[in-house]
Amino acid sequence: MNKKVAVILSGCGVYDGSEIYESVVTLLRLDQRGAKVQCFAPEIEQMHVINHLTGEEMPERRSVLIEAARLARGEIKPLAQARAEDFDALILPGGFGAAKNLCNFATQGPDCQVNPEVLALTQAFAQAGKPIGLMCIAPTMATHIFGTGVTLTLGSDEADAAAAVRQMGAEHQACAVDDIVVDHKHKLVTTPAYMLAQTISEAAAGINKLVDQVLEMTEAR
Amino acid sequence: MNKKVAVILSGCGVYDGSEIYESVVTLLRLDQRGAKVQCFAPEIEQMHVINHLTGEEMPERRSVLIEAARLARGEIKPLAQARAEDFDALILPGGFGAAKNLCNFATQGPDCQVNPEVLALTQAFAQAGKPIGLMCIAPTMATHIFGTGVTLTLGSDEADAAAAVRQMGAEHQACAVDDIVVDHKHKLVTTPAYMLAQTISEAAAGINKLVDQVLEMTEAR
Repeated sequence: MNKKVAVILSGCGVYDGSEIYESVVTLLRLDQRGAKVQCFAPEIEQMHVINHLTGEEMPERRSVLIEAARLARGEIKPLAQARAEDFDALILPGGFGAAKNLCNFATQGPDCQVNPEVLALTQAFAQAGKPIGLMCIAPTMATHIFGTGVTLTLGSDEADAAAAVRQMGAEHQACAVDDIVVDHKHKLVTTPAYMLAQTISEAAAGINKLVDQVLEMTEAR
Repeated sequence: MNKKVAVILSGCGVYDGSEIYESVVTLLRLDQRGAKVQCFAPEIEQMHVINHLTGEEMPERRSVLIEAARLARGEIKPLAQARAEDFDALILPGGFGAAKNLCNFATQGPDCQVNPEVLALTQAFAQAGKPIGLMCIAPTMATHIFGTGVTLTLGSDEADAAAAVRQMGAEHQACAVDDIVVDHKHKLVTTPAYMLAQTISEAAAGINKLVDQVLEMTEAR
């Protein structure tokens, strides 16, 4: 099939960047399905650097793009170079980096803003009718991308994040860790991943379904 | 089955730490097979920090344990706390970190030394007859662990690393990227992974076989 898929990363590590397992499972499934992948990340500083052993902030500065390059074995480009017309679909893994570096949901909640480059690219995919997959906390950007009324999941209906996206105008649906929510009108696929996952294989089950559904929607165009 | 498997990481990123895809595929397969995993890393400084976007050294210092914690979502312990008697098997992913932080093969070649904590733990597994899996460049530590005559692969027979381990007294066997070499006498399983892999799914094919073989050898005890 050789579909072309862009993946936006937000660093390298669950607490200040892209969730590593979500990102790698996404890249593995895309490769196993024959998709051609290009990773991108914004050329900005991380909101902060977290010591993943202690959970405490470190007195350092790191670049989202340079750290995300670790997750891509160096094969990554600045997000400013990404063009929707070059790809069939777009996927954003989660991790706190999605809510700290790609938007500021982690600090602003329902009043959050999305990074302008991220917003421009995701909206270009949406306007072109090309499918988008958002996992874990990344669906908090969906109303900015698609407008109100978009249907998505962040896992449990009782989670604070679910209340926040409802306040932003989204339709939140509860979803099991190994399943996906599909908004066919907006061609948006979401899965809870580490909003719910207790193990890497639980997360992988939902992410594999998300990747498969996104690729299927590229066929339907 | 619920086998207990220890995994030694060497940082987070192919050029100065553990190869991320190799590590995550290992953890995913172990979880899918029902193994109970504990990650460890030595509490030492990385040899250096590489900018994975440019390949150049960065003027920074990072801890192997703290960076490896990114790959384990924080669930990692100092290597000094690892005891062979608590586990059924041991696996070391590759990446330059294995040859820069766990030993110094990257700079010393056949004259390399293995970090004392890494050597003590791996030798304890070997002496207890518990299986060990080494992937990518990590098999360069095999003669230190098992002595001369141990059989392993680093991928191509023509590679400089293959010549180096032969000089160190190992029996090198060429091996396809999606296959493994098994030394039944020493209970050592090796696979080329990113010594040969062009794609993540190629690496995954060999790593999945390595994990399965290591788990099978725990049954045979």
